[in-house]
Amino acid sequence: MNLILLDPDDIAADGHARVRDPRRLRHLHEVHRAAPGDELTLGVENGGLGRGRLLHLSSDEACFVVEQLDQPPPAPLPVHLVLALPRPRMLARTLEHVTALGVKHITLLHTRRVEKSYWQSPELAPERVREHLILGLEQARDTRLPEVTLATRFRPFLEDSLPDLLKGRRGLLAHPGMATPCPRGIDTPSLLLVGPEGGFIPYEVERLLEAGCEGIHLGERILRVETAVTALLARLF
Amino acid sequence: MNLILLDPDDIAADGHARVRDPRRLRHLHEVHRAAPGDELTLGVENGGLGRGRLLHLSSDEACFVVEQLDQPPPAPLPVHLVLALPRPRMLARTLEHVTALGVKHITLLHTRRVEKSYWQSPELAPERVREHLILGLEQARDTRLPEVTLATRFRPFLEDSLPDLLKGRRGLLAHPGMATPCPRGIDTPSLLLVGPEGGFIPYEVERLLEAGCEGIHLGERILRVETAVTALLARLF
Repeated sequence: MNLILLDPDDIAADGHARVRDPRRLRHLHEVHRAAPGDELTLGVENGGLGRGRLLHLSSDEACFVVEQLDQPPPAPLPVHLVLALPRPRMLARTLEHVTALGVKHITLLHTRRVEKSYWQSPELAPERVREHLILGLEQARDTRLPEVTLATRFRPFLEDSLPDLLKGRRGLLAHPGMATPCPRGIDTPSLLLVGPEGGFIPYEVERLLEAGCEGIHLGERILRVETAVTALLARLF
Repeated sequence: MNLILLDPDDIAADGHARVRDPRRLRHLHEVHRAAPGDELTLGVENGGLGRGRLLHLSSDEACFVVEQLDQPPPAPLPVHLVLALPRPRMLARTLEHVTALGVKHITLLHTRRVEKSYWQSPELAPERVREHLILGLEQARDTRLPEVTLATRFRPFLEDSLPDLLKGRRGLLAHPGMATPCPRGIDTPSLLLVGPEGGFIPYEVERLLEAGCEGIHLGERILRVETAVTALLARLF
Protein backbone atom coordinates (compact mmCIF):
# COMPACT_ATOMS: atom_id res chain seq x y z
CA MET A 1 0.00 0.00 0.00
CA ASN A 2 2.13 2.84 -1.37
CA LEU A 3 -0.94 5.07 -1.46
CA ILE A 4 -3.99 5.42 0.76
CA LEU A 5 -6.83 5.55 -1.70
CA LEU A 6 -9.80 7.51 -0.39
CA ASP A 7 -13.38 7.48 -1.45
CA PRO A 8 -14.55 11.09 -2.01
CA ASP A 9 -16.95 10.44 0.92
CA ASP A 10 -13.98 9.75 3.23
CA ILE A 11 -13.05 13.44 3.13
CA ALA A 12 -15.07 15.71 5.38
CA ALA A 13 -15.75 19.38 4.74
CA ASP A 14 -13.12 20.32 7.36
CA GLY A 15 -10.40 18.68 5.18
CA HIS A 16 -10.05 15.68 7.47
CA ALA A 17 -9.99 12.25 5.86
CA ARG A 18 -11.05 9.22 7.86
CA VAL A 19 -10.13 5.62 7.09
CA ARG A 20 -12.15 2.97 8.92
CA ASP A 21 -11.88 -0.33 7.06
CA PRO A 22 -9.95 -3.08 8.86
CA ARG A 23 -7.59 -3.91 5.94
CA ARG A 24 -6.14 -0.43 5.62
CA LEU A 25 -6.07 0.17 9.37
CA ARG A 26 -4.15 -3.07 9.86
CA HIS A 27 -1.73 -2.09 7.12
CA LEU A 28 -1.17 1.34 8.70
CA HIS A 29 -0.48 -0.32 12.06
CA GLU A 30 1.57 -3.29 10.98
CA VAL A 31 3.40 -2.33 7.80
CA HIS A 32 3.66 1.44 7.98
CA ARG A 33 3.88 1.36 11.79
CA ALA A 34 2.37 4.80 11.39
CA ALA A 35 2.25 7.32 14.24
CA PRO A 36 0.55 10.73 14.60
CA GLY A 37 2.55 13.33 12.69
CA ASP A 38 3.61 10.93 9.91
CA GLU A 39 3.13 12.11 6.34
CA LEU A 40 1.71 9.59 3.89
CA THR A 41 0.68 9.64 0.24
CA LEU A 42 -3.07 9.92 -0.23
CA GLY A 43 -5.23 9.92 -3.32
CA VAL A 44 -8.91 10.20 -4.16
CA GLU A 45 -10.51 7.54 -6.27
CA ASN A 46 -10.45 8.77 -9.90
CA GLY A 47 -8.88 12.02 -8.68
CA GLY A 48 -5.57 13.55 -7.65
CA LEU A 49 -2.74 12.61 -5.31
CA GLY A 50 -1.03 14.48 -2.49
CA ARG A 51 0.25 14.18 1.05
CA GLY A 52 -1.69 13.84 4.28
CA ARG A 53 -0.56 14.12 7.88
CA LEU A 54 -1.81 11.51 10.32
CA LEU A 55 -3.68 13.19 13.21
CA HIS A 56 -4.63 10.09 15.14
CA LEU A 57 -4.67 6.35 14.65
CA SER A 58 -6.66 3.90 16.75
CA SER A 59 -7.87 0.36 16.21
CA ASP A 60 -11.02 1.61 14.47
CA GLU A 61 -10.05 4.86 12.75
CA ALA A 62 -7.20 6.75 11.13
CA CYS A 63 -7.69 10.48 10.67
CA PHE A 64 -5.56 12.57 8.31
CA VAL A 65 -5.27 16.29 7.66
CA VAL A 66 -5.29 16.48 3.90
CA GLU A 67 -3.40 19.10 1.96
CA GLN A 68 -4.27 19.62 -1.67
CA LEU A 69 -4.67 16.39 -3.61
CA ASP A 70 -3.75 17.98 -6.91
CA GLN A 71 -1.03 15.83 -8.46
CA PRO A 72 -2.13 13.77 -11.44
CA PRO A 73 -1.97 9.97 -11.26
CA PRO A 74 0.54 8.19 -13.53
CA ALA A 75 -0.34 7.86 -17.21
CA PRO A 76 -2.49 4.87 -18.17
CA LEU A 77 -1.42 2.32 -20.79
CA PRO A 78 -3.15 2.86 -24.16
CA VAL A 79 -4.63 -0.61 -24.16
CA HIS A 80 -7.89 -2.45 -23.77
CA LEU A 81 -7.07 -5.94 -22.47
CA VAL A 82 -9.31 -8.84 -23.48
CA LEU A 83 -8.45 -11.77 -21.30
CA ALA A 84 -9.94 -15.24 -21.46
CA LEU A 85 -11.28 -15.75 -17.94
CA PRO A 86 -8.47 -17.38 -15.91
CA ARG A 87 -9.06 -19.70 -12.97
CA PRO A 88 -10.08 -17.73 -9.89
CA ARG A 89 -6.74 -17.39 -8.05
CA MET A 90 -4.95 -16.50 -11.27
CA LEU A 91 -7.69 -13.96 -12.04
CA ALA A 92 -7.16 -12.26 -8.69
CA ARG A 93 -3.40 -11.90 -9.15
CA THR A 94 -3.69 -10.94 -12.81
CA LEU A 95 -6.14 -8.14 -12.00
CA GLU A 96 -3.61 -6.78 -9.48
CA HIS A 97 -0.67 -7.02 -11.90
CA VAL A 98 -2.42 -5.36 -14.84
CA THR A 99 -3.96 -2.63 -12.70
CA ALA A 100 -0.55 -1.83 -11.23
CA LEU A 101 0.86 -1.72 -14.77
CA GLY A 102 -1.75 0.87 -15.79
CA VAL A 103 -4.42 -1.03 -17.75
CA LYS A 104 -7.78 0.82 -17.58
CA HIS A 105 -10.07 -1.36 -19.71
CA ILE A 106 -10.42 -5.08 -19.14
CA THR A 107 -12.85 -7.49 -20.79
CA LEU A 108 -13.02 -11.00 -19.34
CA LEU A 109 -14.01 -13.32 -22.15
CA HIS A 110 -15.42 -16.81 -22.39
CA THR A 111 -13.63 -19.08 -24.86
CA ARG A 112 -13.85 -22.81 -25.50
CA ARG A 113 -11.05 -23.69 -23.10
CA VAL A 114 -12.34 -21.56 -20.21
CA GLU A 115 -13.93 -23.87 -17.66
CA LYS A 116 -17.57 -22.90 -17.33
CA SER A 117 -17.40 -23.17 -13.53
CA TYR A 118 -15.00 -20.19 -13.44
CA TRP A 119 -17.94 -17.92 -14.24
CA GLN A 120 -19.56 -18.97 -10.95
CA SER A 121 -16.49 -18.04 -8.88
CA PRO A 122 -16.99 -15.61 -5.97
CA GLU A 123 -13.85 -13.84 -7.28
CA LEU A 124 -16.05 -12.43 -10.07
CA ALA A 125 -18.42 -10.64 -7.69
CA PRO A 126 -18.10 -6.90 -8.34
CA GLU A 127 -16.90 -6.19 -4.79
CA ARG A 128 -14.18 -8.87 -5.03
CA VAL A 129 -13.02 -7.61 -8.43
CA ARG A 130 -12.96 -4.11 -7.00
CA GLU A 131 -10.77 -5.25 -4.08
CA HIS A 132 -8.12 -6.52 -6.48
CA LEU A 133 -8.26 -3.39 -8.59
CA ILE A 134 -7.83 -1.25 -5.46
CA LEU A 135 -4.81 -3.32 -4.39
CA GLY A 136 -3.25 -2.75 -7.82
CA LEU A 137 -3.90 1.00 -7.63
CA GLU A 138 -2.51 1.27 -4.08
CA GLN A 139 0.61 -0.61 -5.20
CA ALA A 140 1.30 1.64 -8.19
CA ARG A 141 0.13 4.93 -6.61
CA ASP A 142 -2.63 5.29 -9.12
CA THR A 143 -6.18 6.53 -8.54
CA ARG A 144 -8.05 5.70 -11.74
CA LEU A 145 -10.09 2.54 -11.33
CA PRO A 146 -10.10 0.20 -14.36
CA GLU A 147 -13.41 -0.74 -15.89
CA VAL A 148 -14.06 -4.47 -16.08
CA THR A 149 -16.59 -5.97 -18.49
CA LEU A 150 -17.72 -9.60 -18.63
CA ALA A 151 -18.21 -11.19 -22.05
CA THR A 152 -19.69 -14.56 -21.20
CA ARG A 153 -20.19 -15.77 -24.78
CA PHE A 154 -17.57 -15.79 -27.53
CA ARG A 155 -19.76 -15.38 -30.62
CA PRO A 156 -21.65 -12.29 -29.43
CA PHE A 157 -18.31 -10.78 -28.35
CA LEU A 158 -16.84 -11.50 -31.80
CA GLU A 159 -19.79 -10.22 -33.76
CA ASP A 160 -21.21 -7.42 -31.63
CA SER A 161 -18.39 -6.02 -29.47
CA LEU A 162 -15.11 -6.65 -31.29
CA PRO A 163 -15.77 -4.46 -34.36
CA ASP A 164 -16.30 -1.42 -32.10
CA LEU A 165 -13.31 -2.26 -29.90
CA LEU A 166 -11.11 -2.39 -33.01
CA LYS A 167 -12.15 1.08 -34.17
CA GLY A 168 -9.05 3.23 -33.65
CA ARG A 169 -7.17 0.41 -31.93
CA ARG A 170 -4.51 -1.97 -33.22
CA GLY A 171 -5.75 -5.50 -32.51
CA LEU A 172 -3.04 -7.82 -31.19
CA LEU A 173 -3.82 -11.48 -30.68
CA ALA A 174 -1.18 -13.05 -28.42
CA HIS A 175 -1.02 -16.75 -29.21
CA PRO A 176 1.83 -19.28 -29.40
CA GLY A 177 2.89 -20.10 -32.94
CA MET A 178 1.71 -16.84 -34.54
CA ALA A 179 4.00 -15.41 -37.24
CA THR A 180 5.17 -12.13 -35.68
CA PRO A 181 7.15 -11.58 -32.48
CA CYS A 182 5.46 -9.24 -30.01
CA PRO A 183 6.33 -5.66 -31.08
CA ARG A 184 8.33 -3.49 -28.68
CA GLY A 185 7.70 -0.01 -27.37
CA ILE A 186 4.65 0.93 -29.42
CA ASP A 187 2.45 3.70 -28.14
CA THR A 188 -0.50 3.07 -30.44
CA PRO A 189 -3.94 2.54 -28.87
CA SER A 190 -4.24 -1.23 -28.85
CA LEU A 191 -6.59 -4.09 -28.14
CA LEU A 192 -4.61 -6.98 -26.67
CA LEU A 193 -6.25 -10.43 -26.62
CA VAL A 194 -4.82 -13.18 -24.43
CA GLY A 195 -6.17 -16.75 -24.37
CA PRO A 196 -6.75 -19.15 -21.49
CA GLU A 197 -4.42 -21.86 -20.19
CA GLY A 198 -4.33 -24.23 -23.15
CA GLY A 199 -4.83 -21.34 -25.57
CA PHE A 200 -7.53 -20.22 -27.98
CA ILE A 201 -8.80 -23.05 -30.18
CA PRO A 202 -7.99 -22.84 -33.93
CA TYR A 203 -11.55 -21.70 -34.74
CA GLU A 204 -11.23 -18.77 -32.33
CA VAL A 205 -7.80 -17.82 -33.69
CA GLU A 206 -9.15 -17.84 -37.26
CA ARG A 207 -12.16 -15.68 -36.40
CA LEU A 208 -10.05 -13.16 -34.48
CA LEU A 209 -7.51 -12.88 -37.31
CA GLU A 210 -10.36 -12.48 -39.85
CA ALA A 211 -11.79 -9.72 -37.69
CA GLY A 212 -8.57 -7.77 -38.21
CA CYS A 213 -6.28 -8.75 -35.31
CA GLU A 214 -2.58 -9.35 -35.89
CA GLY A 215 -1.18 -12.56 -34.41
CA ILE A 216 1.85 -12.07 -32.16
CA HIS A 217 3.91 -14.44 -30.02
CA LEU A 218 6.35 -14.24 -27.11
CA GLY A 219 8.71 -16.99 -28.28
CA GLU A 220 8.68 -20.73 -27.87
CA ARG A 221 8.25 -20.78 -24.09
CA ILE A 222 4.72 -21.42 -22.88
CA LEU A 223 3.97 -19.01 -20.03
CA ARG A 224 1.27 -18.96 -17.40
CA VAL A 225 -1.39 -16.36 -18.10
CA GLU A 226 -0.27 -13.99 -15.36
CA THR A 227 3.37 -14.13 -16.50
CA ALA A 228 2.41 -13.77 -20.17
CA VAL A 229 0.15 -10.77 -19.64
CA THR A 230 2.77 -8.87 -17.63
CA ALA A 231 5.46 -9.76 -20.19
CA LEU A 232 3.27 -8.66 -23.12
CA LEU A 233 2.36 -5.31 -21.53
CA ALA A 234 5.99 -4.61 -20.56
CA ARG A 235 7.25 -5.39 -24.04
CA LEU A 236 4.50 -3.59 -25.96
CA PHE A 237 4.44 -0.28 -24.05
CA MET B 1 2.70 -29.14 -16.78
CA ASN B 2 3.39 -28.80 -20.49
CA LEU B 3 6.34 -31.16 -20.16
CA ILE B 4 6.98 -34.25 -18.04
CA LEU B 5 10.47 -33.63 -16.73
CA LEU B 6 12.32 -36.86 -16.02
CA ASP B 7 15.31 -37.53 -13.87
CA PRO B 8 17.89 -39.53 -15.88
CA ASP B 9 17.27 -42.32 -13.33
CA ASP B 10 13.58 -42.45 -14.33
CA ILE B 11 14.55 -43.96 -17.70
CA ALA B 12 15.32 -47.68 -17.66
CA ALA B 13 17.68 -49.44 -20.07
CA ASP B 14 14.66 -50.78 -22.02
CA GLY B 15 13.65 -47.22 -22.93
CA HIS B 16 10.70 -47.15 -20.53
CA ALA B 17 10.32 -44.10 -18.30
CA ARG B 18 8.47 -44.39 -15.01
CA VAL B 19 6.91 -41.52 -13.08
CA ARG B 20 5.94 -42.27 -9.49
CA ASP B 21 5.63 -39.02 -7.58
CA PRO B 22 2.09 -38.08 -6.48
CA ARG B 23 2.14 -34.55 -7.91
CA ARG B 24 2.83 -35.56 -11.48
CA LEU B 25 0.60 -38.62 -11.30
CA ARG B 26 -2.27 -36.47 -10.06
CA HIS B 27 -1.65 -33.98 -12.86
CA LEU B 28 -1.64 -36.78 -15.48
CA HIS B 29 -4.93 -38.09 -14.11
CA GLU B 30 -6.75 -34.84 -13.42
CA VAL B 31 -5.46 -32.26 -15.88
CA HIS B 32 -4.21 -34.31 -18.82
CA ARG B 33 -6.87 -37.00 -18.22
CA ALA B 34 -4.24 -39.19 -19.84
CA ALA B 35 -4.99 -42.68 -21.11
CA PRO B 36 -2.74 -45.44 -22.46
CA GLY B 37 -1.70 -44.65 -26.03
CA ASP B 38 -1.59 -40.87 -25.45
CA GLU B 39 1.53 -39.05 -26.64
CA LEU B 40 3.00 -36.45 -24.29
CA THR B 41 6.06 -34.20 -24.29
CA LEU B 42 8.87 -35.54 -22.14
CA GLY B 43 12.26 -34.13 -21.29
CA VAL B 44 15.30 -35.16 -19.27
CA GLU B 45 16.63 -32.81 -16.63
CA ASN B 46 19.42 -30.78 -18.23
CA GLY B 47 18.96 -32.79 -21.44
CA GLY B 48 16.78 -33.02 -24.53
CA LEU B 49 13.06 -33.09 -25.25
CA GLY B 50 10.88 -35.48 -27.24
CA ARG B 51 7.64 -37.43 -27.21
CA GLY B 52 6.66 -40.41 -25.14
CA ARG B 53 3.69 -42.77 -25.46
CA LEU B 54 1.85 -43.69 -22.28
CA LEU B 55 1.88 -47.47 -21.79
CA HIS B 56 -0.03 -47.62 -18.55
CA LEU B 57 -1.21 -45.27 -15.83
CA SER B 58 -2.29 -46.31 -12.35
CA SER B 59 -2.60 -44.51 -9.04
CA ASP B 60 1.06 -45.16 -8.24
CA GLU B 61 2.88 -45.26 -11.58
CA ALA B 62 2.87 -43.91 -15.10
CA CYS B 63 5.00 -45.77 -17.63
CA PHE B 64 6.02 -44.29 -20.99
CA VAL B 65 7.77 -45.68 -24.04
CA VAL B 66 10.30 -43.00 -24.81
CA GLU B 67 11.41 -42.21 -28.33
CA GLN B 68 14.54 -40.15 -28.80
CA LEU B 69 14.74 -37.16 -26.48
CA ASP B 70 16.93 -35.20 -28.87
CA GLN B 71 15.32 -31.80 -29.32
CA PRO B 72 17.14 -28.93 -27.61
CA PRO B 73 15.34 -26.97 -24.86
CA PRO B 74 14.48 -23.31 -25.58
CA ALA B 75 17.31 -20.78 -25.44
CA PRO B 76 18.09 -19.34 -21.99
CA LEU B 77 18.06 -15.59 -21.26
CA PRO B 78 21.57 -14.09 -21.15
CA VAL B 79 21.13 -12.83 -17.62
CA HIS B 80 22.22 -13.46 -14.07
CA LEU B 81 19.43 -12.21 -11.80
CA VAL B 82 20.35 -10.81 -8.39
CA LEU B 83 17.17 -10.50 -6.39
CA ALA B 84 16.83 -9.13 -2.87
CA LEU B 85 15.20 -12.00 -1.01
CA PRO B 86 11.40 -11.49 -1.25
CA ARG B 87 8.92 -12.65 1.36
CA PRO B 88 8.37 -16.40 1.11
CA ARG B 89 5.17 -16.58 -0.97
CA MET B 90 6.49 -13.95 -3.37
CA LEU B 91 9.78 -15.86 -3.61
CA ALA B 92 7.96 -19.04 -4.61
CA ARG B 93 5.99 -17.35 -7.38
CA THR B 94 8.94 -15.29 -8.57
CA LEU B 95 11.14 -18.39 -8.92
CA GLU B 96 8.43 -19.95 -11.09
CA HIS B 97 8.01 -16.83 -13.26
CA VAL B 98 11.72 -16.27 -13.88
CA THR B 99 12.43 -19.95 -14.52
CA ALA B 100 9.60 -20.07 -17.05
CA LEU B 101 11.04 -16.95 -18.69
CA GLY B 102 14.45 -18.63 -19.10
CA VAL B 103 16.66 -17.26 -16.30
CA LYS B 104 19.46 -19.76 -15.46
CA HIS B 105 21.42 -17.94 -12.75
CA ILE B 106 19.76 -16.50 -9.67
CA THR B 107 21.41 -14.98 -6.61
CA LEU B 108 19.15 -14.24 -3.64
CA LEU B 109 20.67 -11.31 -1.78
CA HIS B 110 20.30 -9.84 1.67
CA THR B 111 19.84 -6.07 1.73
CA ARG B 112 18.88 -3.68 4.50
CA ARG B 113 15.17 -3.84 3.79
CA VAL B 114 14.98 -7.64 3.57
CA GLU B 115 13.40 -8.93 6.77
CA LYS B 116 15.92 -11.18 8.46
CA SER B 117 13.22 -13.76 9.24
CA TYR B 118 12.84 -14.47 5.50
CA TRP B 119 16.17 -16.29 5.58
CA GLN B 120 14.66 -18.82 7.98
CA SER B 121 11.71 -19.59 5.70
CA PRO B 122 11.13 -23.25 4.74
CA GLU B 123 10.69 -21.95 1.16
CA LEU B 124 14.48 -21.53 1.04
CA ALA B 125 15.18 -25.22 1.69
CA PRO B 126 16.94 -26.63 -1.40
CA GLU B 127 14.15 -29.14 -2.08
CA ARG B 128 11.47 -26.41 -1.90
CA VAL B 129 13.45 -24.11 -4.18
CA ARG B 130 13.90 -27.02 -6.56
CA GLU B 131 10.13 -27.67 -6.63
CA HIS B 132 9.47 -24.13 -7.83
CA LEU B 133 12.21 -24.32 -10.43
CA ILE B 134 10.77 -27.60 -11.73
CA LEU B 135 7.29 -26.04 -11.96
CA GLY B 136 8.77 -23.19 -14.02
CA LEU B 137 10.57 -25.62 -16.34
CA GLU B 138 7.49 -27.81 -16.79
CA GLN B 139 5.44 -24.71 -17.62
CA ALA B 140 7.86 -23.43 -20.28
CA ARG B 141 8.91 -26.86 -21.66
CA ASP B 142 12.48 -26.30 -20.60
CA THR B 143 14.89 -28.84 -19.09
CA ARG B 144 17.83 -26.79 -17.86
CA LEU B 145 17.58 -26.23 -14.12
CA PRO B 146 18.60 -22.73 -12.93
CA GLU B 147 21.34 -22.45 -10.37
CA VAL B 148 20.35 -20.57 -7.21
CA THR B 149 22.95 -19.01 -4.89
CA LEU B 150 22.27 -17.42 -1.51
CA ALA B 151 24.15 -14.24 -0.63
CA THR B 152 23.19 -13.67 2.98
CA ARG B 153 25.34 -10.58 3.56
CA PHE B 154 25.44 -7.47 1.38
CA ARG B 155 29.04 -6.31 1.94
CA PRO B 156 30.73 -9.62 1.10
CA PHE B 157 28.51 -9.86 -2.00
CA LEU B 158 29.50 -6.35 -3.03
CA GLU B 159 33.20 -6.77 -2.42
CA ASP B 160 33.87 -10.43 -3.18
CA SER B 161 31.22 -11.62 -5.65
CA LEU B 162 30.03 -8.61 -7.64
CA PRO B 163 33.34 -7.78 -9.40
CA ASP B 164 33.46 -11.29 -10.88
CA LEU B 165 29.76 -11.25 -11.80
CA LEU B 166 30.32 -7.98 -13.69
CA LYS B 167 33.15 -9.42 -15.80
CA GLY B 168 31.70 -9.71 -19.30
CA ARG B 169 28.24 -8.67 -18.11
CA ARG B 170 26.38 -5.37 -18.32
CA GLY B 171 25.31 -4.49 -14.78
CA LEU B 172 21.74 -3.13 -14.59
CA LEU B 173 20.42 -1.85 -11.28
CA ALA B 174 16.62 -1.60 -11.44
CA HIS B 175 15.53 1.03 -8.95
CA PRO B 176 12.78 3.68 -8.97
CA GLY B 177 14.07 7.18 -9.68
CA MET B 178 17.20 6.14 -11.61
CA ALA B 179 18.07 8.29 -14.64
CA THR B 180 17.65 5.86 -17.55
CA PRO B 181 14.51 4.00 -18.66
CA CYS B 182 14.94 0.23 -18.85
CA PRO B 183 16.53 -0.55 -22.26
CA ARG B 184 14.57 -2.68 -24.72
CA GLY B 185 15.54 -5.78 -26.65
CA ILE B 186 19.22 -6.01 -25.73
CA ASP B 187 20.93 -9.34 -26.11
CA THR B 188 24.05 -8.51 -24.15
CA PRO B 189 25.02 -10.79 -21.24
CA SER B 190 23.67 -8.89 -18.25
CA LEU B 191 23.57 -8.83 -14.49
CA LEU B 192 20.15 -7.55 -13.38
CA LEU B 193 19.78 -6.40 -9.76
CA VAL B 194 16.31 -5.95 -8.25
CA GLY B 195 15.70 -4.64 -4.74
CA PRO B 196 13.22 -5.72 -2.06
CA GLU B 197 9.75 -4.27 -1.34
CA GLY B 198 10.67 -0.78 -0.18
CA GLY B 199 13.74 -0.74 -2.43
CA PHE B 200 17.48 -0.65 -1.94
CA ILE B 201 18.58 1.97 0.59
CA PRO B 202 20.58 4.95 -0.76
CA TYR B 203 23.87 3.48 0.57
CA GLU B 204 23.28 0.27 -1.38
CA VAL B 205 22.36 2.15 -4.55
CA GLU B 206 25.54 4.24 -4.32
CA ARG B 207 27.79 1.24 -3.79
CA LEU B 208 26.20 -0.69 -6.68
CA LEU B 209 26.54 2.28 -9.05
CA GLU B 210 30.17 2.78 -7.95
CA ALA B 211 30.82 -0.88 -8.67
CA GLY B 212 29.87 -0.24 -12.29
CA CYS B 213 26.12 -0.91 -12.52
CA GLU B 214 23.87 1.37 -14.60
CA GLY B 215 20.72 2.56 -12.86
CA ILE B 216 17.51 1.87 -14.80
CA HIS B 217 13.83 2.39 -14.02
CA LEU B 218 10.45 1.13 -15.23
CA GLY B 219 8.58 4.44 -14.94
CA GLU B 220 6.80 6.12 -12.08
CA ARG B 221 4.60 3.19 -11.09
CA ILE B 222 5.81 1.19 -8.10
CA LEU B 223 5.43 -2.50 -8.87
CA ARG B 224 5.49 -5.57 -6.70
CA VAL B 225 8.71 -7.52 -7.00
CA GLU B 226 7.17 -10.37 -8.99
CA THR B 227 5.51 -7.96 -11.46
CA ALA B 228 8.66 -5.85 -11.75
CA VAL B 229 10.99 -8.78 -12.41
CA THR B 230 8.77 -10.20 -15.16
CA ALA B 231 8.35 -6.74 -16.71
CA LEU B 232 12.11 -6.06 -16.62
CA LEU B 233 13.02 -9.41 -18.22
CA ALA B 234 10.34 -9.03 -20.91
CA ARG B 235 11.48 -5.53 -21.78
CA LEU B 236 15.22 -6.20 -21.68
CA PHE B 237 15.35 -9.43 -23.72
